[in-house]
Amino acid sequence: MTKFGRHDDKTLIDLMVESSLRALEDAGASEKNVDAVYAASMLAGELNNRVAIGSALVDQLALIPAAADRVENGPASGGSAIKNAYCGIACGMYDTVLVTGGEKMRHVPGETITDYIATMTNIEAEYVHGVTLPSLAGMLTRLYMERYGLTEEDLARVAVKNHLNGSKNPYAHIQQPIALEGIYGSPEAEVNNPMIADPIRMYHCCPVTDGAASVLLCATEKAKEFTDTPIRIAGIGQATDKMAVQDRKDPAVLEALRVSAAQAFKMSKTTPQDMSLAELHDAFTILEIVESEDAGFFKKGAGSKALRDGVTALEGRLPINPSGGLKARGHPVGATGVAQVVELTWQLRGEADKRQVKNAKRGFSCNLGGFANNILAFVLERS
Amino acid sequence: MTKFGRHDDKTLIDLMVESSLRALEDAGASEKNVDAVYAASMLAGELNNRVAIGSALVDQLALIPAAADRVENGPASGGSAIKNAYCGIACGMYDTVLVTGGEKMRHVPGETITDYIATMTNIEAEYVHGVTLPSLAGMLTRLYMERYGLTEEDLARVAVKNHLNGSKNPYAHIQQPIALEGIYGSPEAEVNNPMIADPIRMYHCCPVTDGAASVLLCATEKAKEFTDTPIRIAGIGQATDKMAVQDRKDPAVLEALRVSAAQAFKMSKTTPQDMSLAELHDAFTILEIVESEDAGFFKKGAGSKALRDGVTALEGRLPINPSGGLKARGHPVGATGVAQVVELTWQLRGEADKRQVKNAKRGFSCNLGGFANNILAFVLERS
Repeated sequence: MTKFGRHDDKTLIDLMVESSLRALEDAGASEKNVDAVYAASMLAGELNNRVAIGSALVDQLALIPAAADRVENGPASGGSAIKNAYCGIACGMYDTVLVTGGEKMRHVPGETITDYIATMTNIEAEYVHGVTLPSLAGMLTRLYMERYGLTEEDLARVAVKNHLNGSKNPYAHIQQPIALEGIYGSPEAEVNNPMIADPIRMYHCCPVTDGAASVLLCATEKAKEFTDTPIRIAGIGQATDKMAVQDRKDPAVLEALRVSAAQAFKMSKTTPQDMSLAELHDAFTILEIVESEDAGFFKKGAGSKALRDGVTALEGRLPINPSGGLKARGHPVGATGVAQVVELTWQLRGEADKRQVKNAKRGFSCNLGGFANNILAFVLERS
Repeated sequence: MTKFGRHDDKTLIDLMVESSLRALEDAGASEKNVDAVYAASMLAGELNNRVAIGSALVDQLALIPAAADRVENGPASGGSAIKNAYCGIACGMYDTVLVTGGEKMRHVPGETITDYIATMTNIEAEYVHGVTLPSLAGMLTRLYMERYGLTEEDLARVAVKNHLNGSKNPYAHIQQPIALEGIYGSPEAEVNNPMIADPIRMYHCCPVTDGAASVLLCATEKAKEFTDTPIRIAGIGQATDKMAVQDRKDPAVLEALRVSAAQAFKMSKTTPQDMSLAELHDAFTILEIVESEDAGFFKKGAGSKALRDGVTALEGRLPINPSGGLKARGHPVGATGVAQVVELTWQLRGEADKRQVKNAKRGFSCNLGGFANNILAFVLERS
């Protein structure tokens, strides 16, 4: 990974080259080893005036004539790229594939970044009425409060946990721990943590971040050529749901996560209880709670209690987002799905330093496209 | 396919839904049959303000919870989507996959379409200096004229041939045959066929087109469930070259085509001589000639003679672009790679009506990303 944060002096391609070279170096791989490149980005054309970034990346990395494609699936672009790279290897077309996700989104031509992000909502039912992602998250939060007794304190606790984890991650955008009182239930909280989309406040949203992340995938039988600590993609799932939240059977249920997570667990012959940790897609704090339930870790409505009880803390039974998550590590949208897999890899190798989850054997990640209408789920394990 | 042309009253998603439904109907497939959707588009976000169009398509087609991704590789987005769909099936993850490429590019916000297309050139070496795709084609043409004696008449003959073929294709954008005298060597030609980028004239360029095309891919053993005339993807190749034309060893050689075509022929255990027809990527007339050589059909420099001798005409030994090619069928960039495979499928099934190539057994297509720096090659055959 690159450090996630603000990178005024680098282009999107610069960032993607940087994380790519780190991945290649980590594996001791050279240009002779790479058969194909998958580049993931949601808004390369819109924000950075670049299309066909797979071609640019393969050129800059001197990997020609390797195949190169860009995969785009909104904020799940990184997850989709990994899935397609996996298929390229699993079908025998490629032995070794580099996957790099990146986004440079702090410089926005013309409109606001929120508007660009909203172009992934349903155009007739949502976008034209001014629906944005924070507004959808606000409505989901309100529903959860009514139905399951979720409180604003619970939301704040997700942020507190993930900021604490992020403070131990040198790659995180925000490495500053925050106290609960700083963002909830105090006079200073009113100032520090303004309302964005009722009841969502600033600290319930991920920051806007530049960054890139890469993984090198290869056929299982080749892995020992590159590392003594290969990590295996044991399960992959992907499922879609109605694009417009109003069209979903129950807007409080992430059905696409239920389906994709079940696929990933089935393929890996594991259950949620087998996971040592999880990297969830907390673009908004509410999402971490809902995902922790719909991925199968906790019963519906029980996610906030698990959080309050410390189950999902770094030293808990199921640490969630030891990296800091999207909330603190940051969310360069095209990079996120790859960054989650990078974090799982480091954790499973025991290389996560101060944020290391003890005895990490298996990890789960989920990467949300749209407002949870296209979800990738992964199970990784030590091999 | 949709009819290619100008579709003022339809959105990009409308067009992609239309071609998707036609493909599903052709196969007698329902939503139960589709495991995944690959959407190809180069400029959906930039021109149509839509990202994550895979999610939109799967929603509109009622294919939920099928997986859905968008693949973008400039004007080779369609070819890349087919390759990734192929891998998804070949690795056993999916049985049946819908691939739909589309572009709606006749309505351009702000700048010109030429500028948007140029965002796929090398940013430092080309784009910032005002390089556009027509200018690159102009330089390649000039080099070919100097080195191989290509004439402006040869370029015009590509257009005449492809307009004639296009006049027999009800899906073509331009269905009007043109006479050589209308665009070359006459006083009216000077008016009809103005200079665009010396020596490239208007009739040496493809039109700007809206449209979508779809194919349904499935595992070989499933094909008989859908059709009595399955067409097999026998070979796939993909290769990249330096992005900036000036960095290439020989700018007159499409090295990425040589490599990708060789891969496709090797995988299919065929040679160029085994092909009954070819759909080449004639975004500019010069490209058809150069590709016909670098794909291996003719010796270097001999492509224009083959054209003059009628070898590549509809009734010739190797008909090239019986569909009318990008020149007459049109070039909605994200749709083109898929439309080429659709044409090969119709030809190999004997369903191409007035433009039917006699006894078509095997077909080749190539789809160019960038200015030929990322190329997909396919060999299809009757199965």
